[in-house]
Amino acid sequence: MPATDLDELVGRAREGQPRAVARLISLVEDSSPRVADIARLLTPYTGNARVIGLTGPPGVGKSTSTSALLTALRSAGRRVGVLAIDPSSPFSGGALLGDRIRMTEHATDPGVFIRSMATRGHLGGLSWATPQAVRVLDAASFDVVLIETVGVGQSEVDVVKLADTTVVLLAPGMGDGIQAAKAGVLEIADVFVVNKADRDGAEATVHDLKQMISLARRELRGPSWRQPIVRTIASKGEGATEVVAALDSHHTWLTAHGELARRRSARARDEVEAIALRRLRAELADLRDGDRLTDLADLVVARELDPFAAAEALITDLRGY
Amino acid sequence: MPATDLDELVGRAREGQPRAVARLISLVEDSSPRVADIARLLTPYTGNARVIGLTGPPGVGKSTSTSALLTALRSAGRRVGVLAIDPSSPFSGGALLGDRIRMTEHATDPGVFIRSMATRGHLGGLSWATPQAVRVLDAASFDVVLIETVGVGQSEVDVVKLADTTVVLLAPGMGDGIQAAKAGVLEIADVFVVNKADRDGAEATVHDLKQMISLARRELRGPSWRQPIVRTIASKGEGATEVVAALDSHHTWLTAHGELARRRSARARDEVEAIALRRLRAELADLRDGDRLTDLADLVVARELDPFAAAEALITDLRGY
Repeated sequence: MPATDLDELVGRAREGQPRAVARLISLVEDSSPRVADIARLLTPYTGNARVIGLTGPPGVGKSTSTSALLTALRSAGRRVGVLAIDPSSPFSGGALLGDRIRMTEHATDPGVFIRSMATRGHLGGLSWATPQAVRVLDAASFDVVLIETVGVGQSEVDVVKLADTTVVLLAPGMGDGIQAAKAGVLEIADVFVVNKADRDGAEATVHDLKQMISLARRELRGPSWRQPIVRTIASKGEGATEVVAALDSHHTWLTAHGELARRRSARARDEVEAIALRRLRAELADLRDGDRLTDLADLVVARELDPFAAAEALITDLRGY
Repeated sequence: MPATDLDELVGRAREGQPRAVARLISLVEDSSPRVADIARLLTPYTGNARVIGLTGPPGVGKSTSTSALLTALRSAGRRVGVLAIDPSSPFSGGALLGDRIRMTEHATDPGVFIRSMATRGHLGGLSWATPQAVRVLDAASFDVVLIETVGVGQSEVDVVKLADTTVVLLAPGMGDGIQAAKAGVLEIADVFVVNKADRDGAEATVHDLKQMISLARRELRGPSWRQPIVRTIASKGEGATEVVAALDSHHTWLTAHGELARRRSARARDEVEAIALRRLRAELADLRDGDRLTDLADLVVARELDPFAAAEALITDLRGY
């Protein structure tokens, strides 16, 4: 794609044309050789979107909650981009995943953009492609970027690194699920949402969480954010407005305490480092494909060089690029 | 440790003093800052040991087979170093693992050195520490280095990358075990050993293997090694001499076909590349700890730089070291 076409594409994305946004995300997600150019063109228009991470164990009603939250955010007049990350799927692109069909109610709303992203098989996974996609949505003037992870485990941790605010969804009666989630969940959650609040055990879940939060706070020093617990019944849209209010409170707190700048700086550090490491790895791979590594390896086999000295020579070559 | 002490330690290891060998392995395994010096000092004395990998699913009698093979190799007058790799254990060092107690019959033999190595938690795992330990044993004049992996899966693949000859152990009546092993096993095995050959189903296992080998050979081009199948009853020491003969045949074949040089060159390539990548990663981590990455990240947050340009600047710094 010639540079002028890229300029035009970025222009159209900034006007909010969904096809241009989708095309740009496809380009950055597939690590197109133009990904650096795209980032350069987009960067001046970024920094305005609030990035919200939404995670939780399977079965808590994440899709329904995302949909309810979307409705509430739209009622508040905000344009919302959604990135639904599915670490288990090798398929990516504009197509909606099965349980995301419910989101079709937003499909015709020009203030909403929904995108599924697969991370399986992608080098660097979530942590590589997602910040690039967030940048596209940010530059395309979405006020909020919602990153929803379908999975659990590593993706939960990764989503926190990308988000200004992380929402952890729980539901009553999850038994072991909530137990397993507990360990990591307290550290990553800025806002807790207990969905299916009309079900048996909802109050017990809230009570459990309150105790965990109190215990954890005793170990903290300095000013800290008191994680709110919001009860929702996402299937009826109940509580979504309160979730938006909690998100706004957290944003205010983040800004007032310099924590937003700190989080965004940390995020930028992670991203810059990941790009640098990926680039170095690619350069090493080039050397591997070439004769130089083979020549060095043969010297090692011949005992004329030890492998550390050979690695040193390889790095010297890399620096001499 | 001053350089002269290191020289002396290497000298004592070359004389076959087990405590010096053990100490050197501890140093390289823990990624001591002297690991490059140690490799440099050892390299001139290496290249003579034959490296044998021994792997197979749990329950095939791997420890007993290693012990029987050790006895047979010792009878043939060869000095043998054993590295027992346990990917599941966080504990490393000279202590013998539980089921390795049987090897104590070799404990007083100065021609035998046995070492358990844990790989869990080690950066780079097996593929990093093991070649360093192999180098120590090689320089300490062991004729054969046996690498035994306790686990299955990735460690099987890794062991192949390190060995001149890979022995895959199987046993009758393993049901799903053998089925699961089948897929990867054919590609990695140079010699098959069917242990517990006096048990029901042993002949069926041999027959199965023969069929697999025949089928696989049809897809091969060029001269190839016909994987032998050796029947053993390791608990009685039966068949161990035949295993040694199969190993010798394979070594002769490797040498005659230039395959030994090819395998050792590939191994050296892997090692050099791994060392280079580890070193670059460490340098990036240094930059991360310093102010430079933070400064660049802040420029990214301020939208004065896009993250790709920042990564570029970081790499430029790295090269300017």
